[in-house]
Amino acid sequence: MARYKMTLEYDGTPFSGWQRQASPILSVQGCIEEAILKLTGKRVLLFGAGRTDAGVHATRQVAHFDSEIKIQDVNSFIKSVNFFLRPYPICIFEVCEVQEDFHARFSAKSRSYSYLILNRQHISVLLNQKVWHVREQLDIDLMQEGAEILKGFHDFTSFRSTHCQARSALRTISTIKITKAEPDLVNIYINAPSFLHNQVRIIVSGLKNIGCGEWTIENLKKVLDARDRTMSAATAPACGLYLCDVEY
Amino acid sequence: MARYKMTLEYDGTPFSGWQRQASPILSVQGCIEEAILKLTGKRVLLFGAGRTDAGVHATRQVAHFDSEIKIQDVNSFIKSVNFFLRPYPICIFEVCEVQEDFHARFSAKSRSYSYLILNRQHISVLLNQKVWHVREQLDIDLMQEGAEILKGFHDFTSFRSTHCQARSALRTISTIKITKAEPDLVNIYINAPSFLHNQVRIIVSGLKNIGCGEWTIENLKKVLDARDRTMSAATAPACGLYLCDVEY
Repeated sequence: MARYKMTLEYDGTPFSGWQRQASPILSVQGCIEEAILKLTGKRVLLFGAGRTDAGVHATRQVAHFDSEIKIQDVNSFIKSVNFFLRPYPICIFEVCEVQEDFHARFSAKSRSYSYLILNRQHISVLLNQKVWHVREQLDIDLMQEGAEILKGFHDFTSFRSTHCQARSALRTISTIKITKAEPDLVNIYINAPSFLHNQVRIIVSGLKNIGCGEWTIENLKKVLDARDRTMSAATAPACGLYLCDVEY
Repeated sequence: MARYKMTLEYDGTPFSGWQRQASPILSVQGCIEEAILKLTGKRVLLFGAGRTDAGVHATRQVAHFDSEIKIQDVNSFIKSVNFFLRPYPICIFEVCEVQEDFHARFSAKSRSYSYLILNRQHISVLLNQKVWHVREQLDIDLMQEGAEILKGFHDFTSFRSTHCQARSALRTISTIKITKAEPDLVNIYINAPSFLHNQVRIIVSGLKNIGCGEWTIENLKKVLDARDRTMSAATAPACGLYLCDVEY
């Protein structure tokens, strides 16, 4: 038995999320497992570092799987799996053998997400389903000021889904960096050892509230301290969110 | 009779190009003229600043048209045309009345294009049909050095399509600026008063040859001096090209 680490990219738009669902619901995990089955005749179980939600993208997701047969030629394995993945918007770009105690999810030291906001009056057909379209003008500096409040170790009850199954809402956010990517694009980069369910999307929504003047920095502090999801911001749309790295 | 200037964006992927073709071939011009016909019951003739080829995108194209009826509410006109444009990936974002001697193509002082190269080993499903995928590592500084040769007033016979109908191949390139957008993205920005057919795509292809070491700077000089299309680079794919502004 050999364990393999897989690095991949996907456009989350057509998928119900990372996690396999009963057919015919489309999932990233399910599509890749199916492609490997078609190629090797063997069913594998794929473990992802982050179980992204429906519509969430990944520029760099990591997963692992065990294989009874040792993969002889990794490059031709990647090419063949990518062939069987067509026409799904998933691309595997690295596969390598790892120690048997490596776990894509539990060995990860941290995760990085980027959230893209298109900040202008009109929509973009070129960025359809790839950004959150916000018409109110955003003040990036104020948003960064708000982000500083959320950095560090906090109880993030106000910033997680009520369906979140984690036992504790205590988490540490290492980095939040807000930059203008292009004239109309705002990129919110967040890095943390681990995240709660919907945490990035609710944080983004709170920072957007600050950026457009709906919330003051004081409001944000109160929301964080309240530990109450109902006092907090809405959940920002999935389509703006990208899992962009997993660090080991 | 009133003349209107229109600013718009489109994803060029499904279109045979800007210029109207006999039905059922899809063109940007044809789709917009059809949408205005559906809305107003009147057929208009749309003149674009740049007649982009099949697969070429525009983040900011400009066009003009004449209308017998004065548009009362420009914002609701834009919304309605955009409604009738669905499901085509075209979005109109500005319409304003202009002097009757304004001409989208002939009044333009210059045009700006961006060309995006994805420079890494693996493809990107998120940027499918939005970039040219080049695997050979590109040296941006060398490419910029090559770009300096092409700037200014030259005979660009080696850098235009053999089907180009312009009488003269003499053109002036004002700016070529090559930047790294993201770790794997190279952006080639070109501005000029006007361009020859396929000029940007052949220039990009030549600069790519320099970036990957296939051409020296001396080669590029010789190609330019030769005034011979057959000695020059191939035409870079349409999908990496964006018309990104028209200046008046």
